[in-house]
Amino acid sequence: MIARPITTIFIIVAVALAFISHAFAQSEPLPSWNDGDTKRSIVDFVTRVTGQGPDFVPPAERIAVFDNDGTLWCEQPFYFQLAFALDRVKAMAPDHPEWKSKQPFKALLEQDMRTLVTFGEKGLLDIVVATHGGMTTDTFTKTVLEWTANARHPRFNRPYTELIYQPMLELLAYLRANDFKTFIVSGGGIEFMRPWVEKVYGIPPEQVVGSSGEVKYQLGPDDRPILMKLGKIDFIDDGPGKPVGINRFIGRRPIFAFGNSDGDLQMLQWTAAGSGRRFMGLVHHTDADREYAYDRRSQFGKLDKALDEATKKNWTVVDMKADWRRVFPFQN
Amino acid sequence: MIARPITTIFIIVAVALAFISHAFAQSEPLPSWNDGDTKRSIVDFVTRVTGQGPDFVPPAERIAVFDNDGTLWCEQPFYFQLAFALDRVKAMAPDHPEWKSKQPFKALLEQDMRTLVTFGEKGLLDIVVATHGGMTTDTFTKTVLEWTANARHPRFNRPYTELIYQPMLELLAYLRANDFKTFIVSGGGIEFMRPWVEKVYGIPPEQVVGSSGEVKYQLGPDDRPILMKLGKIDFIDDGPGKPVGINRFIGRRPIFAFGNSDGDLQMLQWTAAGSGRRFMGLVHHTDADREYAYDRRSQFGKLDKALDEATKKNWTVVDMKADWRRVFPFQN
Repeated sequence: MIARPITTIFIIVAVALAFISHAFAQSEPLPSWNDGDTKRSIVDFVTRVTGQGPDFVPPAERIAVFDNDGTLWCEQPFYFQLAFALDRVKAMAPDHPEWKSKQPFKALLEQDMRTLVTFGEKGLLDIVVATHGGMTTDTFTKTVLEWTANARHPRFNRPYTELIYQPMLELLAYLRANDFKTFIVSGGGIEFMRPWVEKVYGIPPEQVVGSSGEVKYQLGPDDRPILMKLGKIDFIDDGPGKPVGINRFIGRRPIFAFGNSDGDLQMLQWTAAGSGRRFMGLVHHTDADREYAYDRRSQFGKLDKALDEATKKNWTVVDMKADWRRVFPFQN
Repeated sequence: MIARPITTIFIIVAVALAFISHAFAQSEPLPSWNDGDTKRSIVDFVTRVTGQGPDFVPPAERIAVFDNDGTLWCEQPFYFQLAFALDRVKAMAPDHPEWKSKQPFKALLEQDMRTLVTFGEKGLLDIVVATHGGMTTDTFTKTVLEWTANARHPRFNRPYTELIYQPMLELLAYLRANDFKTFIVSGGGIEFMRPWVEKVYGIPPEQVVGSSGEVKYQLGPDDRPILMKLGKIDFIDDGPGKPVGINRFIGRRPIFAFGNSDGDLQMLQWTAAGSGRRFMGLVHHTDADREYAYDRRSQFGKLDKALDEATKKNWTVVDMKADWRRVFPFQN
């Protein structure tokens, strides 16, 4: 009769497992999304491509891509990587007296954002290049982690990595629970994102596509190999660069894409142009109280052409104010 | 008494599952590897990093990288991608009468491999560029799949995708069963490998790192987006390029790396230089009967410096003749 207790345990475990999995399947997947067309379009899509009907997509092909700035985390009052670069410029300024009179560094050091933006994308790139190069990849990773631990957002006075959107965290988890593979496809620097995205979003570094600088393999003085960041742009993963980046890093066309700005338009077009059912979504920042309200004329994260195309093509547009019960995890 | 039959089913399922998982755990993981130091070094490493001891590595960090040419599939009498390019040159030659008198195309069309190799890596690149560009990524994928379906290896008279190493297939499966994520890191073209690696190796396209050409996003005449291959090299994932490619695409340092030539030396050095227990392996081609025997003076897949370093550093070196019970899946 030794078998009895073991059998009993098996029964208990099996019944418990069946109960838990049933309960899990029944539980509300997107609690921070208000009921309405937006939420319905997401759930409907996932139900269709995972169900046994004509829209079924095998798990291996369930590729979902997300922009980062303005889609997974906040991008105001300016891209957070620029805040990082600003802090780097300040820290490095004593070794670079020439920056006091050299643009765009002068404007940055004087926190004169109005002048800074007149230097456009080129000016921002100069700053990124100057502050992201001349060190090993390991040192850069440490610098990023120190910054995410210590820097604070000027309005919310919290670490930048807390300014992430609760509804999008739930969406990422919901997709993964349905055997999607979730990727970031961002104009931001790939080495700026990778140190913290796994902890913050549950997305591993190998599922991050982004802009990158040139890196060189060298043997250090002790014959220990290092990867040196050269401070030269290698690839800009923005606008038409996003489908290129998706092709290069992922090598499959996504069936689900989420962005928030004109820089995501080509990624959404590329996703839409595949065969079978697809999901294209945009976050529209309409909530000045809980976050920010901006679109067509914004300096950072401008949403203009992509909004028109979304309307024309019937893509999902999140109205942050109406569709999100909660914006940041720390808000109630 | 309705509960009875359900309970009985649960017991049967639970007992069956326990039995199967026990049987699976006990089954021989690498049947095509002969017993000896080589096989022992692999099993020992995997046991240590997955066990509860001081060498434990969390599953997310179990990154394993494999060279392709000469490590997962054969690379003789010349790289298979070159065989593909040769067939492309032949197919395209009617539209390129100038190739009859223009090197390196002339040598290739005349199958004069001796002259061809005098043009070195540059010559091979010219051929790859001429045959891999000027078409969309979708068209290129179709061309590759047609070729892998129809082309035959000159010696074995089989599709090139059958000239894969049975012991390495088992090793890939063994690592994945132990929660490793397996990647290809190859000097070969990323878009040449991706169409078939999932079916052949069980490695999804997004886990393939390789050399790449420039690609441009365009809207076609019907406003349908396309990615056009420009016929310009973007990145060479070979030698010191391999750690750069690993950093760019994976963003984590592997704990397990397998190669077969000097082109893999830096990838092995980079893997070795991390902290904790690591595995570095080389396939040494010592079996002229079943495959090929070559190393220090080979035109393709030269193994010289890496062999010396492996000896010095006590890396695992596979003696193909002695260590592999079977080479190709079709051999007994």
